[in-house]
Amino acid sequence: MSLMEVNSLLSATKQAVDAYIVDRIHDRVAQATVVYPRYERLWREIARIYQAGGKRMRPYLTVVGYGALDAAIIPVAAVQELLHVAMLVHDDIIDRDVVRHSQPTVNGAYEADYAPLLPPQQTTHYANSVALLAGDALLSEAYHLVQSAPFSSSVIRQLSERLSQSVFEVIGGELIDVEAGFIMTEQFDPMTIYRYKTASYSLVGPLVSGALCAEVDETTRGILQEFGTQCGIAFQLQDDLIGMFGDEATTGKSADTDVREGKRTVLIAEHQTMMNDEQAARFAQWFGMRDAPGQVLRIEASGARQKTEATAQQYFAQARATLAKLQHGFRRNELEQFVDHLQGRRY
Amino acid sequence: MSLMEVNSLLSATKQAVDAYIVDRIHDRVAQATVVYPRYERLWREIARIYQAGGKRMRPYLTVVGYGALDAAIIPVAAVQELLHVAMLVHDDIIDRDVVRHSQPTVNGAYEADYAPLLPPQQTTHYANSVALLAGDALLSEAYHLVQSAPFSSSVIRQLSERLSQSVFEVIGGELIDVEAGFIMTEQFDPMTIYRYKTASYSLVGPLVSGALCAEVDETTRGILQEFGTQCGIAFQLQDDLIGMFGDEATTGKSADTDVREGKRTVLIAEHQTMMNDEQAARFAQWFGMRDAPGQVLRIEASGARQKTEATAQQYFAQARATLAKLQHGFRRNELEQFVDHLQGRRY
Repeated sequence: MSLMEVNSLLSATKQAVDAYIVDRIHDRVAQATVVYPRYERLWREIARIYQAGGKRMRPYLTVVGYGALDAAIIPVAAVQELLHVAMLVHDDIIDRDVVRHSQPTVNGAYEADYAPLLPPQQTTHYANSVALLAGDALLSEAYHLVQSAPFSSSVIRQLSERLSQSVFEVIGGELIDVEAGFIMTEQFDPMTIYRYKTASYSLVGPLVSGALCAEVDETTRGILQEFGTQCGIAFQLQDDLIGMFGDEATTGKSADTDVREGKRTVLIAEHQTMMNDEQAARFAQWFGMRDAPGQVLRIEASGARQKTEATAQQYFAQARATLAKLQHGFRRNELEQFVDHLQGRRY
Repeated sequence: MSLMEVNSLLSATKQAVDAYIVDRIHDRVAQATVVYPRYERLWREIARIYQAGGKRMRPYLTVVGYGALDAAIIPVAAVQELLHVAMLVHDDIIDRDVVRHSQPTVNGAYEADYAPLLPPQQTTHYANSVALLAGDALLSEAYHLVQSAPFSSSVIRQLSERLSQSVFEVIGGELIDVEAGFIMTEQFDPMTIYRYKTASYSLVGPLVSGALCAEVDETTRGILQEFGTQCGIAFQLQDDLIGMFGDEATTGKSADTDVREGKRTVLIAEHQTMMNDEQAARFAQWFGMRDAPGQVLRIEASGARQKTEATAQQYFAQARATLAKLQHGFRRNELEQFVDHLQGRRY
């Protein structure tokens, strides 16, 4: 495979993976019709939410880990994206998000649907219940797809093992994220959240799964794992920065979402370390509140932004240093370009 | 394998499957400690909820479908139970149940845990969020376990396909069940719920999965599928009757739960067909209400109880007739005993 630009490999991967997944979801739409007309509707929601957005970074990394964009790797790349969408659907319930990529989330769509039929409190409960089922369906499809990959039974077994590891870790990361908002403990560290909630299933899992299909040596897999962790942490730090200081029109979410949700990002943790007692008391008062005016500016003024930016750059640099252990050629060159691509993301 | 009494095969299966699953969950407890102390706690909750109750009917059916209780079938039998527990954990969120088998559900346990930390409305939301993650973890374990079974890769592929079918169908059944409470439509029929929510994953899936491991012919698998559907519907009808008319101390749930939850069981549908307009108007008023005094007696007086009992017996009779297509010996004799066992359940 010749060296391709990130953008062109991303878009070729997206096209192939989307066609594959959308086909499979449409099979389910047809099967659901036999069960119950509104079950068909649930699968149409799943198709809609799948197509609502996403650059397919995870399938891209699977292709790079594997070393080629061919038909064999598509199901394995698709698995990573389905897991991601499953987790987003459940995450939207947890975070009470009714809009993502400027479209209603699954719970958001059902809320609108049920609103004329139920009292307001019931509406959210039942909309969440149905979105919970949609996420289960997607998680199930992800696992099931592993079987469709045309690799040896030993590779299939390892892919399933790695998927299970990804699920185990992302659930751990989500749990810390949920509890960090109200469990006052020093037991957790935002970096742990980033490692498990983001890096493991978004970067390490896809890269290593691709590498497993190419049956590469363990040393290479270890390098990819290390790279994925570092790059994943950098990516998440950058995401927090973009979420807080980015243009709302571009990011599609309100700049103070993390503050309002009481998310203890690294950015906010940095901000906290720079407070005196009086500031800390005031912070505790508004943190997690629905209305937190001026806080975004205060986080910038404290120097927390600058410090977090420096940390992100450090992780990117570590990720590059890890890549230097690979030979030049496919994987190393593609992943270096990928780091360029991520670092170039703008607010 | 010699013919064993249902109770002794059930208890031998339970012992083997529980030991296997509890071992695996304990491995996860240990791995979770590395991530975050409270992630360990989530896995301890999963271990607790797994051990809180359950007769392991699904593993039993897998063993019967396979034709022997040996080490090879245990992981496959375990898969059926893990899927069941995963679905119960999510079902308890949907039904807002905080107690099952006289023990707190996962959401119930976290509600108690978070109550001192959060305002009441937040408590339920976050407890549900964590229970959602616990159910995801269990579903993931179920799929992952399919790979542990020592069968050919072709059998493994078929087991995964069957598991995926079970998940697809139980989600469809759950969805109808959720929406039946408030979507006024003639599109659904309680029998459809029973077929998909109960029979498919609780009886057909386990039986057929066992049979796939023994590589039995397609005709036999077809008979097991038909039997599982009929027997599953009978089982669910009986369950509704026990829930409504059983001794609360034995069933562990309040007799009017289905009425209060607005569940359109066959029993309630039968009751509705026997009303005049005035009775129907009164019914619509209290159905789904928290307090429905006297309704249980009224459902009995209308003749709906008797009619539903007759329908359950009809399905049991059909299930027996289907079994008669199998040769005498293991499977047929064990399944006939199993039907005796189910029919003998008392209120």
